[in-house]
Amino acid sequence: MRKILIIGSGKSTAYLQKYLLDKSDAENLFITIGDLDLKTAQKAIQNHKNAKAIALNVFDNQSRTQAIKNADIVVSMLPARFHIEVAKDCVIYAKPMVTASYVSPEMQALHDAAVAKNIILLNEIGVDPGIDHMSAMQVLDRIRDAGGNIILFESFTGGLVAPENDNNLWNYKFTWNPRNVVLAGQGGAAKFLQEGTYKYIPYNRLFRRTEFLEIDNFGRFEVYANRDSLKYQNAYGLQNVKTLYRGTMRRVGFSRAWNMFVTLGMTDDSYTIDNSEQMTYRDFTNLFLPYSPTDSVELKLRHQLKIDQDDIVWDKLVELDIFSATKKVGIKNATPAQILQNILTQSWSLAKNDKDMIVMYHKFGYEKNGKNHQIDATMVVLGEDQTYTAMAKTVGLPVAMATLAILNKKITATGVQIPISKNIYAPILSELATFGIVFKEKEVPYLGYNPLNI
Amino acid sequence: MRKILIIGSGKSTAYLQKYLLDKSDAENLFITIGDLDLKTAQKAIQNHKNAKAIALNVFDNQSRTQAIKNADIVVSMLPARFHIEVAKDCVIYAKPMVTASYVSPEMQALHDAAVAKNIILLNEIGVDPGIDHMSAMQVLDRIRDAGGNIILFESFTGGLVAPENDNNLWNYKFTWNPRNVVLAGQGGAAKFLQEGTYKYIPYNRLFRRTEFLEIDNFGRFEVYANRDSLKYQNAYGLQNVKTLYRGTMRRVGFSRAWNMFVTLGMTDDSYTIDNSEQMTYRDFTNLFLPYSPTDSVELKLRHQLKIDQDDIVWDKLVELDIFSATKKVGIKNATPAQILQNILTQSWSLAKNDKDMIVMYHKFGYEKNGKNHQIDATMVVLGEDQTYTAMAKTVGLPVAMATLAILNKKITATGVQIPISKNIYAPILSELATFGIVFKEKEVPYLGYNPLNI
Repeated sequence: MRKILIIGSGKSTAYLQKYLLDKSDAENLFITIGDLDLKTAQKAIQNHKNAKAIALNVFDNQSRTQAIKNADIVVSMLPARFHIEVAKDCVIYAKPMVTASYVSPEMQALHDAAVAKNIILLNEIGVDPGIDHMSAMQVLDRIRDAGGNIILFESFTGGLVAPENDNNLWNYKFTWNPRNVVLAGQGGAAKFLQEGTYKYIPYNRLFRRTEFLEIDNFGRFEVYANRDSLKYQNAYGLQNVKTLYRGTMRRVGFSRAWNMFVTLGMTDDSYTIDNSEQMTYRDFTNLFLPYSPTDSVELKLRHQLKIDQDDIVWDKLVELDIFSATKKVGIKNATPAQILQNILTQSWSLAKNDKDMIVMYHKFGYEKNGKNHQIDATMVVLGEDQTYTAMAKTVGLPVAMATLAILNKKITATGVQIPISKNIYAPILSELATFGIVFKEKEVPYLGYNPLNI
Repeated sequence: MRKILIIGSGKSTAYLQKYLLDKSDAENLFITIGDLDLKTAQKAIQNHKNAKAIALNVFDNQSRTQAIKNADIVVSMLPARFHIEVAKDCVIYAKPMVTASYVSPEMQALHDAAVAKNIILLNEIGVDPGIDHMSAMQVLDRIRDAGGNIILFESFTGGLVAPENDNNLWNYKFTWNPRNVVLAGQGGAAKFLQEGTYKYIPYNRLFRRTEFLEIDNFGRFEVYANRDSLKYQNAYGLQNVKTLYRGTMRRVGFSRAWNMFVTLGMTDDSYTIDNSEQMTYRDFTNLFLPYSPTDSVELKLRHQLKIDQDDIVWDKLVELDIFSATKKVGIKNATPAQILQNILTQSWSLAKNDKDMIVMYHKFGYEKNGKNHQIDATMVVLGEDQTYTAMAKTVGLPVAMATLAILNKKITATGVQIPISKNIYAPILSELATFGIVFKEKEVPYLGYNPLNI
């Protein structure tokens, strides 16, 4: 039997486990699931005859190396910063490895050693990064193979609540790491290319420079720019593109409201507040407003942010209860961002029967025989429940399929890789379609940002 | 003769040199001025019989230690980051040292070693920091000695252009390091205390949360908060104060206009722009605005910042020529902040006959016998010309006086010190008064931020 070690059995691993367990007889697989918490791992395998659960701490060198030595391939579903411990052992013991995370500089540094050991360290094969790479490269390669010249590429992804459970004013619930949502866009200006000009958006303007998108049957969305839209310019072969823009999708109105937190300073994660534990939500809000012995926190906030009495953003703040004089922050020495996350979690957690949704939108603009064309491709995946979420499906299935493809020698590349070559993306996208993960393409007039070109 | 080594003879050293040279016969002083550029040092001493100029590179260990060994006391007027090289030698060779800069952690670490060698490393004895410490502590000590209980302390300083030369729309010219002006307020939220509550202002709101001040005969000013108003809370003995606020003074309207640069992202110093050298001012401005094939940079900026057609902030932008399609940035791989500084320097440099001005404003609120009182103290110093500037006077004279006081054993403290004890500030403030550096005090009703207290 071929032995697969999956490290981590937290959120987003349900489909990965199910896919491999379902194939274990036919493909002759034995799956070991290791987790810090043995019970979580046991729950995942459900006494399956081709699987076992083990307690595994990746920082315990002996048990980690032992587990890796015993495996034929290793899948790390740990938080991204922990992959490197696993990856180093995989190189030492010549075991291929798969992750859904961004290639870190430490991971990239293992490339030559991995090539020397004839193994692949395949990363960025979840949803974003992952399905975005594969689905974009498939269309880009097809256009180029047919003689087209790419002039515009835009790509957007969002993790949202399913429309049937979309019942708060923000049209948003946490379906993934809330901390990443609170800190989104921090750490430097967003950079992108528009019609051949570089554009920069500082953090304080990021959520005010949004654009709109529409997906058939799912309505309108907005996008704000990712920090570095140019990150994959070379990898995708887009050196001569005029417009290159990547971003995050939200429902329309989210960003304008979110910008209130940015403006007030509530998303700051760089300092802690001494007496945060005993603070009420109202005290927290008041930290960012001028002192007044008479004026209410409400009016001071309306005045600072110039919010009209009939503006919907006001209701969004009230919905979160940020003016509550009784609810306590309850975290010691917290940063503003940590406190805000805590407040948002009260309102934005998925209810028991809520489902999530992953949306993706690509725009491909190209020139062919002197004419401009555009293809828009969209994907919508809905979760089934809170175990088989859209996030778990779109992250876990590509990881599982790639793992099996490596074992079956259908993926033969070595070194540190991301799924941008046809022999990787083509079979995986085909198989994903059998699970309902499909892109709808349509030809639209090429718009770009220059009406004179139309 | 007592030998004084002054390292650095750049801006703001003219009064320091003159004071010591003028006293050199009476006080039996021999002054060595060392500078990287020998000519600057020679120009400073003007063949004075009690002085000599030397070429001195503080990173050349041999010549630096030689010069320090030969001195009885060392004054470092170098940029703050270079003091530490000098300070380490001063400890080794047991030479007292004086600087006008903030105590760095590296400097603070020398405290015990300096005490062991029985020498003082006196820092923060310029204007801000310097005269602010001394003038504040004098009034605070006086109020406390008379049984008062300090409840409010606010302190503001500004380096501005003299009113007679205040002839641009910003009411501002560079009289000190322009880079510090462009980067002011960055690196974290401003923190202060108002009526017993902590308040935080994020960078994107710093220049919109200003307060106003008035100085007799000099009109109105505005202030924006320093990053950490609480820095000297313990040193000043203000642990129980309700309001503690320190800030920077500008003419009214400066901050609202400056905030446009902050909002656009032009003060960002965290990334460089590839092709900056050939960019026009207009190209630079356009980097921060959405692409449009038809709309002008002007209208896009008006729209982004919501600037009405009759708003004076618009004229302030036009005055700086930031829409020029011919003026070139001319710096390779520059950050936005570096480019903005370059543009501002074109408009905000002092003309040949322009004079500068230093303003300082302290508010002392205190309770005594059940009643609240307030004393406001203001200082205005005008420059004489571009050598004998107000900045050079207010920075250089306290440094010079302290140097002589240490030589004459009137200051006997050892270790790393700042001028907050009476035996240091009292004689220096008295002597500064003979040079016209005086504070005008007046009693005003105690206002605080709580009208119910009045």
